[in-house]
Amino acid sequence: MKFKVAILGTGNVAWHLAPALEEAGHTVTEVYGRDLSKVQQVTKRLYTTEAKTDLDFSDSEAEIFILAVSDQAISELADEVILPEDGILVHTSGAVSLDILGYSSASYTGIFYPLQTFSKDREINFEDVPFLLESEDGTTLQKLKKLAKSLSPMQYILKSKDRMALHIAAVFASNFSNHMLRLAEEIMARKGLDYEMLKPLIIETISKSLELGAKKAQTGPAIRSDFNTLDAHYQFLNYNAQVAEIYRLISQDIIDSY
Amino acid sequence: MKFKVAILGTGNVAWHLAPALEEAGHTVTEVYGRDLSKVQQVTKRLYTTEAKTDLDFSDSEAEIFILAVSDQAISELADEVILPEDGILVHTSGAVSLDILGYSSASYTGIFYPLQTFSKDREINFEDVPFLLESEDGTTLQKLKKLAKSLSPMQYILKSKDRMALHIAAVFASNFSNHMLRLAEEIMARKGLDYEMLKPLIIETISKSLELGAKKAQTGPAIRSDFNTLDAHYQFLNYNAQVAEIYRLISQDIIDSY
Repeated sequence: MKFKVAILGTGNVAWHLAPALEEAGHTVTEVYGRDLSKVQQVTKRLYTTEAKTDLDFSDSEAEIFILAVSDQAISELADEVILPEDGILVHTSGAVSLDILGYSSASYTGIFYPLQTFSKDREINFEDVPFLLESEDGTTLQKLKKLAKSLSPMQYILKSKDRMALHIAAVFASNFSNHMLRLAEEIMARKGLDYEMLKPLIIETISKSLELGAKKAQTGPAIRSDFNTLDAHYQFLNYNAQVAEIYRLISQDIIDSY
Repeated sequence: MKFKVAILGTGNVAWHLAPALEEAGHTVTEVYGRDLSKVQQVTKRLYTTEAKTDLDFSDSEAEIFILAVSDQAISELADEVILPEDGILVHTSGAVSLDILGYSSASYTGIFYPLQTFSKDREINFEDVPFLLESEDGTTLQKLKKLAKSLSPMQYILKSKDRMALHIAAVFASNFSNHMLRLAEEIMARKGLDYEMLKPLIIETISKSLELGAKKAQTGPAIRSDFNTLDAHYQFLNYNAQVAEIYRLISQDIIDSY
């Protein structure tokens, strides 16, 4: 089943999702954004798509309208967008409830949340993207499931409340673990040490954690309650009070968790 | 060049290092530990090795004595061990200075630090283990380099001060990133959600971070300064004040870093 889809947004999700939809055989009828040059950066990646800077979609041929914008922008765009009759309005956020689309003109609303980290500099294989879906309307949910299935083998139906918990877990698993690597990079750079030395450790850590579970995989001074080392590390980090506090707090939480 | 090596310790490093040394053609002459049953768990993995529970190595044929024990135990064991003349005493810690071996009876001392995360439940390929080496004696350093080279293509010579910085970076990159996955597992379990959903995200996050660098790879609500989402997540976590504070502090550090 092929759909006509409009994309509202020009960020990282829109950037990757729009071409993926085309590749799966759907038609991307329009891409909307306030900034025409940003819209054109996305439409350049597509075959024939209208670049739009206004929110009147009353004449659109699309059936599904995907709000792929920042969480803060969802509510305003949902309230202002004018959809054709029977148009389905969905957003792609992990954090925002379905209710937020309740004041829109859409007859049907839903969630189409791709659980992955998207950066423009990095290709995404949508087969590795679980889609988290929600709608109060059964027919809409079936359509979203078909759309997701055309992109990825992983589709899950999830209520907004559970989706928020999932999103928080994803922040820890992705954004925060990446920030731990960032802090490691900075400590190495500060001493002129080659970050390459750490890469085998990082790869083994994550592989092990996914295989054994993080609890069983933990090593290091905190789980050994090695307070001499913890104290020496904390002292070393005193050039940055916030990073030292992060060190202290995570170490304490590891100590408390075992 | 093949060595005769004694291993002092029965922990995760000794567990993996002793068989790897044998496989590389060296002879593990003795394994020492206070607890004979733990010693025997290690010697069971080896061909012909003496299980020792006393520290008198004066008659040992070994040339290199590897203290693979917890950081707290290094100093006591180094002071008590009796080595044959010209025996080289090294420890395997990332955090402890070379000086700590200065009061031992050893003629030569050094560091033989394998930069990797070791758990008994997980096989280690030593080709993925960088060895960080140090000694004040040139001949000793050459021997440690040969020993390391027989196990891994990655050997680096590093002063104790830089090794400590490297170790702190490794704690962030490995122990702390793993703890972020642990917290994610717990949030999922709390809501009865399947942790499998997060695995593609985790794999993509780390692959991306290693390819682009963590700074460029960062995504999520903190880097977007999305305070609505940050606040909602913080509220959600109020069942565990310490985890909520970890969320707040790392988010703040991400905001401050960009």
